[in-house]
Amino acid sequence: MKKYIGIDLGGTNVRVAVVTEDGEILAQLKSPSYAKEGREKVFNNMIDLIKQLPGWQECAGVGAGVPGPCNQVTGSMMLDTNLPGFKDFPFAQAMTEALGIPSYIDNDANVAGLAEALLGAGKGLPIVYYVTLSTGIGGGLVIDGKCVSGKHGFTGEIANIIIDRNREKINYLAKGAVENEASGTAITRKVKALLGEGAVRHAGDVFQLATEGNEKAKMIADQAIGDLAQLFATLAAAVDPDCFVLGGGLMASADYFMEPMIEKYKEITHEALHDTQFFRAELEEPGILGAAMIPRSRGH
Amino acid sequence: MKKYIGIDLGGTNVRVAVVTEDGEILAQLKSPSYAKEGREKVFNNMIDLIKQLPGWQECAGVGAGVPGPCNQVTGSMMLDTNLPGFKDFPFAQAMTEALGIPSYIDNDANVAGLAEALLGAGKGLPIVYYVTLSTGIGGGLVIDGKCVSGKHGFTGEIANIIIDRNREKINYLAKGAVENEASGTAITRKVKALLGEGAVRHAGDVFQLATEGNEKAKMIADQAIGDLAQLFATLAAAVDPDCFVLGGGLMASADYFMEPMIEKYKEITHEALHDTQFFRAELEEPGILGAAMIPRSRGH
Repeated sequence: MKKYIGIDLGGTNVRVAVVTEDGEILAQLKSPSYAKEGREKVFNNMIDLIKQLPGWQECAGVGAGVPGPCNQVTGSMMLDTNLPGFKDFPFAQAMTEALGIPSYIDNDANVAGLAEALLGAGKGLPIVYYVTLSTGIGGGLVIDGKCVSGKHGFTGEIANIIIDRNREKINYLAKGAVENEASGTAITRKVKALLGEGAVRHAGDVFQLATEGNEKAKMIADQAIGDLAQLFATLAAAVDPDCFVLGGGLMASADYFMEPMIEKYKEITHEALHDTQFFRAELEEPGILGAAMIPRSRGH
Repeated sequence: MKKYIGIDLGGTNVRVAVVTEDGEILAQLKSPSYAKEGREKVFNNMIDLIKQLPGWQECAGVGAGVPGPCNQVTGSMMLDTNLPGFKDFPFAQAMTEALGIPSYIDNDANVAGLAEALLGAGKGLPIVYYVTLSTGIGGGLVIDGKCVSGKHGFTGEIANIIIDRNREKINYLAKGAVENEASGTAITRKVKALLGEGAVRHAGDVFQLATEGNEKAKMIADQAIGDLAQLFATLAAAVDPDCFVLGGGLMASADYFMEPMIEKYKEITHEALHDTQFFRAELEEPGILGAAMIPRSRGH
């Protein structure tokens, strides 16, 4: 059975693993990523870590999930907010040269989507739209087992989709952008404004308060549910995927919001789209598994 | 050079042609489609017409553009509003049997998008999102030279994307659906409500009035421009295409709205997406050319 090297490179930690083609992790190592010490340190530390993995030399390909959009033609990151110095660095090529194995990169949401499409909740379905609902909102589109990355690596960068233009301007995103209205950060912000700074720590607390009958928390939660329903209705019209796979921290409260969200989705979509499936993400390690699946998806 | 049969089957007329693989029409015939006389008449008339085309037997494949979403697995139409009796009829298979040539169907907007992606304004670009701005609003997504049709044949059925939920409910579409706000029909409806039934015949008149300085026409036109900008910003976030190709009757007024629409698009998108290209559709016969390109896109 073929094996691949998967890398989950974040601003804080880096994890590397040897993964079989059907998603079994055979060996895994973790280290700080040393993002503040500059690109060379980050890169060399990552390569050293890989070379400590038993069996790394027999791997058929290398994939890295990185925090930001990537250019698939140059194999480089297009923004390096979380990994200073990596913008336009020929990342994939440098890995290929350092390891002697064909290497690829893609952003972490695309990679998680690829994992769920090939190994997880969307396995076997032609079009999978993965959406991560967390402190932010992101996603990835996988068609026929391959990530669609887009001209700018922005496919699935759905944070800025406007779901109601009549909301407040919050930050650099557009007025009414879904990330400012229905992300964990947004829900928490809104409830704090109504109930006080100490009322909730995160979106999980908001859904808990709503469950307990707090009317203000319920109002904010219900607004977010409507906003998310509109996001999915929009994506269904634009792409018509076989399924949505939902991941991210907000899914801890899925029992609260999934069902009413899907009901609301049906209210605003054509009936032909009502049987589009909404799955909860299944994998515990989508980052590293999805990274390892990039070379598989490219025919290695 | 390979040749294909292209069919443009509408509710009123049917056109059939022999088309070379690079888009030259060698022969073409037209007839009423006889939609009101039932499926058998429509189908047999179309096959008879094809068999009158010189060289039809040497064609490597057949493609038909039809008015409505299609199931690519069964090769059938999923809705038959404009062609009664065709819902769930194994259309592609029936053509394959009648002609002895591999046959495919897809909806007319997808087919027009395929033509523009392979032969027209989007030629050579990996991801083309075609949008038709006409009495209605529709579209098609072409990735790596193949139409993405979607689970329900609804990819690109963008009419129902909500661009402002605070508008009036007009019809079966969702409140604030882009087709009810920025299509030719919508723009005309709004100006008639302000200036009287006889003030304008179609959207072209609205843009003409706006050009001449009519403030109310200008207000409606500008609202539509903002609405369309938001539609494109949404599609860019969901898919990140290399380009949008814009077709349909509204493009006769493109000189009025394209430039301000793109400016508005930039205001509400991440700067990385600002160089996404907006092209005017180039082909005079996208329906029949795109239909002929379906078998080419499937490897025939």
